This record gives sequence, structure tokens and C-alpha cells, in this order.
Amino acid sequence: MEDKYEKISRLAKRRGFFWQSYEIYGGIGGFISLGPLGVGLKNNIIEKWREVFVKPYRETIVEIETPIITPSKVFEASGHIEHFTDYIVECVKCGRKFRADHLLEEKGLTGLEGLREEELNRLIAEKGVKCPECGGTLGPVSKFNLLFKTTIGPYSEQVGYARPETAQGMFLNFHRIYEVMGRKLPLGIAQIGRVMRNEISPRQGPIRLREFTIMEIELFFDPLNPSCTYLEEVAGERISILRYGNREPIKIKVVEALEEGFIANEWNAFFMALAKKFLNYLGIPDDKQMFVEKGPQEKAHYSSQTFDQVVLTERWGWVEVSGHAYRTDYDLKKHMEYSGRDLRAYRFKGEGEVRKVLQVKPIVKNIIRDFGKDKLPAILSNLNSLDGRKVVEALSKGGLELNIEGIGSIKLNNEHLIVVEREEKDYVERFLPHVAEPSFGIERLLYVVLEYSYRERKGRIILSLPKELAPIKVAVFPLVKEEGLCRIAKEIYGKLKKEGLTVILEEEGSIGKRYAKADEIGIPFAITVDRQSLEDSTVTVRDRDSWRQVRVNIGELPKFINRLLREGALQALEQPSRYPP
Amino acid sequence: MEDKYEKISRLAKRRGFFWQSYEIYGGIGGFISLGPLGVGLKNNIIEKWREVFVKPYRETIVEIETPIITPSKVFEASGHIEHFTDYIVECVKCGRKFRADHLLEEKGLTGLEGLREEELNRLIAEKGVKCPECGGTLGPVSKFNLLFKTTIGPYSEQVGYARPETAQGMFLNFHRIYEVMGRKLPLGIAQIGRVMRNEISPRQGPIRLREFTIMEIELFFDPLNPSCTYLEEVAGERISILRYGNREPIKIKVVEALEEGFIANEWNAFFMALAKKFLNYLGIPDDKQMFVEKGPQEKAHYSSQTFDQVVLTERWGWVEVSGHAYRTDYDLKKHMEYSGRDLRAYRFKGEGEVRKVLQVKPIVKNIIRDFGKDKLPAILSNLNSLDGRKVVEALSKGGLELNIEGIGSIKLNNEHLIVVEREEKDYVERFLPHVAEPSFGIERLLYVVLEYSYRERKGRIILSLPKELAPIKVAVFPLVKEEGLCRIAKEIYGKLKKEGLTVILEEEGSIGKRYAKADEIGIPFAITVDRQSLEDSTVTVRDRDSWRQVRVNIGELPKFINRLLREGALQALEQPSRYPP
Repeated sequence: MEDKYEKISRLAKRRGFFWQSYEIYGGIGGFISLGPLGVGLKNNIIEKWREVFVKPYRETIVEIETPIITPSKVFEASGHIEHFTDYIVECVKCGRKFRADHLLEEKGLTGLEGLREEELNRLIAEKGVKCPECGGTLGPVSKFNLLFKTTIGPYSEQVGYARPETAQGMFLNFHRIYEVMGRKLPLGIAQIGRVMRNEISPRQGPIRLREFTIMEIELFFDPLNPSCTYLEEVAGERISILRYGNREPIKIKVVEALEEGFIANEWNAFFMALAKKFLNYLGIPDDKQMFVEKGPQEKAHYSSQTFDQVVLTERWGWVEVSGHAYRTDYDLKKHMEYSGRDLRAYRFKGEGEVRKVLQVKPIVKNIIRDFGKDKLPAILSNLNSLDGRKVVEALSKGGLELNIEGIGSIKLNNEHLIVVEREEKDYVERFLPHVAEPSFGIERLLYVVLEYSYRERKGRIILSLPKELAPIKVAVFPLVKEEGLCRIAKEIYGKLKKEGLTVILEEEGSIGKRYAKADEIGIPFAITVDRQSLEDSTVTVRDRDSWRQVRVNIGELPKFINRLLREGALQALEQPSRYPP
Repeated sequence: MEDKYEKISRLAKRRGFFWQSYEIYGGIGGFISLGPLGVGLKNNIIEKWREVFVKPYRETIVEIETPIITPSKVFEASGHIEHFTDYIVECVKCGRKFRADHLLEEKGLTGLEGLREEELNRLIAEKGVKCPECGGTLGPVSKFNLLFKTTIGPYSEQVGYARPETAQGMFLNFHRIYEVMGRKLPLGIAQIGRVMRNEISPRQGPIRLREFTIMEIELFFDPLNPSCTYLEEVAGERISILRYGNREPIKIKVVEALEEGFIANEWNAFFMALAKKFLNYLGIPDDKQMFVEKGPQEKAHYSSQTFDQVVLTERWGWVEVSGHAYRTDYDLKKHMEYSGRDLRAYRFKGEGEVRKVLQVKPIVKNIIRDFGKDKLPAILSNLNSLDGRKVVEALSKGGLELNIEGIGSIKLNNEHLIVVEREEKDYVERFLPHVAEPSFGIERLLYVVLEYSYRERKGRIILSLPKELAPIKVAVFPLVKEEGLCRIAKEIYGKLKKEGLTVILEEEGSIGKRYAKADEIGIPFAITVDRQSLEDSTVTVRDRDSWRQVRVNIGELPKFINRLLREGALQALEQPSRYPP
């Protein structure tokens, strides 16, 4: 018997939701392509996410877009070069490579996340794990970095990587956005975009991909004022939490979870409540989703607390669809350290405070002497944001190296810069904001949406997609392919398209087959033009889920359909079916 | 004096449209980041493109999404490994690398596109070109491939590249989409997505990027029936064409350009007319855009005719914003050859025709014997689409190699397959469709939109963005920060946001400064709440472009603003200004 995953995969391929990429070349694991319906569904999921997470909070949360290809320095700073790895074993006989933890899981072991090299080697030896392909002996475990590596420009030493998350784009640009938005905190920076992770041997279709799309927010807040402006909106929301070390989840209001200390901060709690509601809109009921707290070994290197939002699936059990991390000031601190730029935010104090400031002053005439007049502006503007202490340190060690776009690397010494200390009365304190991050993978959401809307009825497939998400809202069918009926159908098609609805028109095939296809691809309503339409200008409107039909005046169609889409339910359709469903 | 590019770059950075990426690490050429306004503007450009190119033609043109990372085989087939190159020279003294044609252009030479190695070497010697950085001697010219290279999975021999165009995604998936869409031609497959090109030393901000976003359509048509279904819609459109070898463009109706043979096929002509209209919507008038035909040496390797749509800019002169290529059946033919799969479409004939068919038949018991029962289904389903002639050829040479996902590479021989010839009466002819391609670069469009909407008036900047494109539609300002006024302003803000409009609310600063900021970021309308609002529930609405103001009843605001946004012009605002503009 096929399971739901197989059924959905077949449907998705046949109807154009998604399929494995590079089919004509035999396919490559970890890549999928989206067809017309897949793109429609994906875009509707993205739009819904914006409606839930961004649009209502526009004064606080804004969207940016940053590049996928990233210079190595960024991931050295963020810790991904060191930590974004899996353990791999190679068969000494056939040379095939496998994820060490996956092989042990196949032997029935669990809780392997976070185990180290020696522990994995020990378990492989103990359990007598062999190569699953050829039965050969496995070599020792080694680390494999999951970043896709490349070279930027014509110099082989300029290493770059494809980003594995969009988040670093928000950290790198935090200070600019903070300035653009008027130096206000809290500040949320959102991004939707492709990311890449070079998985070792992915085999779970849309669940484990080497390239996928992420929607995430980095919410920057003042750790001395960590309250979430919008918490009240979700105060009544109950979520299921499985705390680390517990066996059973508890159902609890987010505000209570905060009081109990189960969730580390208000912003993470707020986003978890929104995430629960968001999944409800996507068709996942409360009892099929929960938040699982990760243990100390299982968390990403940057996180002080992490919850995975998981959804129950038929084949894979609980599958993560979003991650909720409290990233503290980890990333900003690291980038400040590696870049030497001051990335701190400002906190205004009522009373001024005398403090000592190190000010970096250029010796302009020597800079011109050594680097030329035309390079002066770029050098000066690069000095602005330097940390005085770092400059003193660098100068004392022989010179300050600056990497300036359009100029390249230059070295400044005591002849070019002096650092003076002065006292100033300061009404401003500088500090590194803390960060709460909700992060969603779209392709997994797309899959669970399909799994939760998949129904079978009398041997036919119905995709009961939430109406908002359905890529096509209405189908228009002439009952038979006759000129008069086709003409009316075309008029209705044109009119509904003008209303901004996504509509299809199909003239060929039996009406039963066309209804069946419309059900399979999740079209909520089908309009049928029949001979009676020629007499009284009415058509039938058929509901995907109940198969009920009702006659409606053609002139009222746009209003009628829009109301049905908005209100969801189809109470009006009380008449018995006229044509085979 | 600053030119427009510098002015726009400064504005874009200060206000959050775009800026160079990785600033805190000194910046890297060829990458930009988009801030909140940049993302808003980009998404509105994309939406407008869909409205012009996709939505009205949904029965013919559908959107897909395919991966960025692509196995090398695809670009071997497409010719990108061989042809997607620039010529590079290295300074023997300092080791810096440059594009050979750019160095020659700096010496005043033009028309260098398509020159070969020996010609470039000769010109460099003749003109005595030296290293522009250190004056050193330049080595010989060599080819540099612009594809970003990486490795897929843990095996170093599995080379992959980031795609330099989305087009290959459409070719690889043509046959699947063709099946999904009911085997109808013409069929357009559109894609919007990131692409990467490893430029050697890009220095033109958003104009020459290493990573950017493309919107393109591959329109597949039957070469025996090349007529464009929608040509009549654009019959009256006049476009400017600069034919190859001519000095002056001609202004001509697209249908006449087709009759004269200036444009090779109806679909390319149709898309060129749409492209002209699309740029009009973006604020580029007819006399600042044209289509330049590329010469035989300048065209891409896959194209039989190419027009670049160019827009006049202040700094760079005519800049390409879209390309219109007639790709013929080049790509499908290549992929058919390299993959061994039959990618042809079907043409139905009235009369049947007897033809000989080679049918590949599996010998199931031997396949089970050699590969096991569980691999049988995957092997059988891979046999379906094989070309009989290729199989015969492979078997005669000792065996047929198949690369099957989940199994890997296997070799079948005469014990596993037989190929039989039989005659059948065939009502179907198979053929490779031809392809017309319009392809737009979004970041360049974003830049020219800003350049064409940039105005200065009384020392202030006004960004007269087309209203449809403006990222923020309305600003709401209490005249002064008083509780009563702020309360009303908040109500208006909330109400307009609920209408689906993008709105900002600003309470701080003088009203003049707030108007100035609203003008700079292109907000079409500003609503001001003043003391009179407390008495008679009216507010002023101010027009960005004319600085005129009119009083409007608060209750009528949503309707009033929506009408203004739809109709564009602001005739209603006849009253003189009340506050400083």
C-alpha cells in the first residue's frame, strides 16, 4: 500500500506541484522543481506569512533582500565554518559516503544529535554497522561542512559560500537598517529567500533539500527592555510545548509559559503564538503541531534556547517546519569582533554621564602623500566607524589594515592616524541588541499543506486546500463543447480574471472528468454553463468539498464567488446536485 | 558635480533602497543588498511584470521555479561551459586580473564584443596597454568562465554550478510542463529568480552584478505554426529598432517590423511590444528606450536573432534592461542529445502515416536476476522515454548505462533488453518546438526607475515614482505631536492599513521635514491631521508631485486615496497649500 507521501508525490508530479529536479539526467537528490500549481501555492503561503508576521507590524518589522553568495569572512565570524557540519563515514570498499547518525538511526538508535566523533566511532563499532550498499567496512567518522563552497571573482583565494540561512544578511545590515528606520528598537528585519545546504545524501523529497526557501525574522531588542509590544494580541493563545527532558507536551497559554520561564523572552513567545496561528491557517490543527525544546547538545551554536515547531506526518512522524531561536547578541558580537566596526545600538539616558572616548583622527597630508588624493574620500569614510581601542592596538602592532572596496587592502600606520582621548558628557549608552528569530522552511510547509488537505472520496482525490491558499480559485466549464455555451463560459472566464481571480477555462472532456481534475488540484469552485444558461442567464456553482451545486445569476457571479472565498463555508449551496459530482 | 548615479546611490543608501553588500567587511564588488524600500519597489516591479507578461495570458503562460545549483552536465549540454566566458589578462608584475575588452575600451576602442584571443592579444600589443594599477606588462589573454563553480554532495567529482540564467530550468522541464498543461502549443514557461555570474571586476553598482534577479519567459511554439495568438493586441504599438549595421534607429509598428523581416518571429515581436509598454509603466518614455539588434559575433551562442532593449542613462549611456532572443530549438536539441531522452512535442495530422518504430522491451526475469526485485520498478520507469535508436547503438557497443536516482549508475546489456522494430500507423508527428525568449534583469530596472523618477525642486529631492510602483502609498502626520491629533492620525493609519495600503505614520519632527522625507522616498500622498480636524473631521491630503493640498473628510479617505492611486492624476487638489509644502 502506498503511504500519503507516495500518493502526494505522484499527484504533485502529475498535476504540476513539484517533482525531483534534473529528471531527464536521472535526477539529483535534494533538489525539487515547482510547477505552475507549486509556484501558486508557494506564493500564497508566502503572502499569508507576510499577512501574519510582517504587515500588521510594519512600523516594527521590515523586509530586506541580501545576496546568497557570501565571502568566507562572514561565516568565519558567524561560526558556520566551524560548526555547520555533519559527521560522515566512508566505506573503505566502495567509497560511498554516509551520515554517521543516519546509519546509527537505521540500527534503531535515537537521541544522536550532538554526539561527538569518538562517541559515534564507538557506537558504529559496537553495533557492527557496515556499508548499507556493499557491506564493506566503514572508515573513521570525519566532519563534513555543509556549506556549498565557491570562488568569487578570478582569484582562487577569494573563497565564498552559498548562505545556509538568510539571517547573516540581517546581522550584517542591522546597523544600516537601524539608521534608516530612525534608530528605534525593537526592530525586526525579515527576509524571504533561497538558501543552500550541501546535505550528504538527502532522500526525503521536499523534506530534506539541498536548496530551499526560507522566511525568517531577526527581531532586535534592547535586553534591558525586552518586552514585546504586541504580546497582548496573543495573550489568549494556547500552544503545545514539549520541554527538554520531558516525555509529554503540555498545553499552555504563551503568557503562562513566559511566567513559568519555559520560554526565554517575550518576542520568541509572541512569534511562537503567531506560528501556531499561521499553521492553523495552513490547515494544520492544534493537536497535530507542537513546539519541541532542543537540548544543550542539539541546539545550534548561536542559540541560547531553541524550539522546533513540528507537524505530525504519516511517513516521517514529527517534522520540523519552523525554528524559534533566542540568538542573544551572539552574531552581532562576532561580526563586531571580526569586522572591527561598532555595531552597537543607542540607549538614551535621562542624565548625562562623563566618559572617555578614543577618537581616531586622520593625518590627511600623509594619507595623500602615500595613497594619492583620489583615494582620500574612501579612506576617510572608512575611518568613521572604527573602534578606537582596536585602532590603538593595531597601530601598536605596526599598522592598521583596511580593506576598502575599489582600492583593495591598504595599511595605515602612525604617520596616517593619531588616536586622541577626550572626555565627553554622554546622554547615550551603546549596547548590543539581543535577537529573537522565527525561521520557516517553505517547501516543508508546502508539503504538509498538501498532506493535510489530501482526501479521498469514492475513489477520487480531493485536495481540500484552504481557499486562501488554492492556486486556482475558480474553474469555468461549458457543459458540452457547443458554441453558445463556450461563448458564455469565455465571457465569465474573462470577467472573473479581470476581478483579479485566478481562473481556468476548460472545454474538453466529460463534465465528470473535469470536476475530478478540479478537485485534484484543489480548485474551490467550479462554474458550469449549461443549456438553461442560454435561457435564464444562470449557471451552476459547485463546491469542491461538499460536491453540492447551486444556480446563480451570471451577473452576480463575481460578488458571489468573492463572498464564498472570503467566508469560506458554502452554506448557500443548499440545492441538490444537478450533474454527476 | 555629482552625476545622477552618485545622487541616486547616496539617496538609496540613506533611505534604504539599496547599497553595496558586505559593507562592514569593506564591501565586495558585484553584490548589492536591498533595504525595506528597495524590496517594496522590487516586488512592485515584479507584480507589474506579471500583470503585463503573464496574468493576461495564463491559458498559455505559466510560472515555474527551479534550483539555482545545477549539475555540470546541464551546462555542458547548453554550451555554457564552453561559451559563457570572458577574456581575461593578468599583470605579470602585480598579479591583478582584468577583462581584456574593458582595458581596450578604456583606450577608446569600441565594437570589441565577439573578438577572439589572437585579435585581443594583437590590439593589446598595438595599443601598448599596461596594467592600470601598477603599470606592469600584461600576460597573454585567456578565457575565464563566468559560472560560479561548486561541488554537490560529499564527492568532489560531482561538480555543480550556480545558474547564470533561469532558462535552462524551463528547457529541462519543458516536457513535464507540456504534459501537465495538456500537450498544447504555444506554451510559455516563465520564471522569476536569482542568477549568478562571476564577473571579473564589476564596478557599476546595480548595473553589473554578480548576483541578480531575472524574470524570463521561454515561449515554445510549433515552427510550422509560429503565429502569436495575441499579436493583434499590440498591432498598433510602435517601437524603435536599431538594426545591426545601421547608425540610426527606426520607429516602426511591430507588425510592420515583422512584414519587413526585421524581427524573426511573431512571438519575439509580441514580447518586444509588451516590453516597450512595460517600460512606459515604469516611467521610461518612448524616446529614451529602443531595441538594438546584436551582430553575428555579439549574440549569445544559442541565439539566431537577439535584440537588447536599452534605456538611456546619464552615466553609462544606453544600458541593456532586457534581452529578446530567438533561441530556435537549440537548447532542447542539445538536452535531447546529452540526456538521450525524447523531448519532442506532438503535432496531430489529419491522415495517418505508416512508420517504423523501435520499441525497447525489458527482459524482466534477467533484470530481477541481476539487480533485484526492488529495483525493477525504477528501472522499468526509466526505460519508457528512451530513444530506440540510441538503445540499439548502446547495446551494440556493449551496454546501456542508466543513471537512476536512488540506485545510481547501472549497465544494461542484451540479456536485459531487446529492441524490436514494428510498423504502426501514426497520426502524430514529433518535433522540437522553437523558442522565443524575453528576459529582464530586475536590479537594472530598479535603477532606471529611480533615475527616471528623480527630480530636484527648490533644493529638495522628489522621487516621482509611478504611483503603482511606490513602496509606500500614504504617509499620515499629526501636524504637531499632541494627544488629540496623534489619536486621530493613528485611527487613520489603522484604517488605511486595513484597506491593504502600505502606510507610514510619523509624529516627530517639523511638518516641513516630514513632507521632505515623504517626497524623497516617493510617497504619493501625505495626510496631515491639524486642529481643524478636531472640529470638522477633515484632514489635508498633499500631492507629492505638485505639492498641492486639499481638505478631505476623514470618512471619505479610503475611497478618495484609492481613487487617486488608480487614476494617477490629482485634479481634485485645486485648493492652495495650507502648510509649507
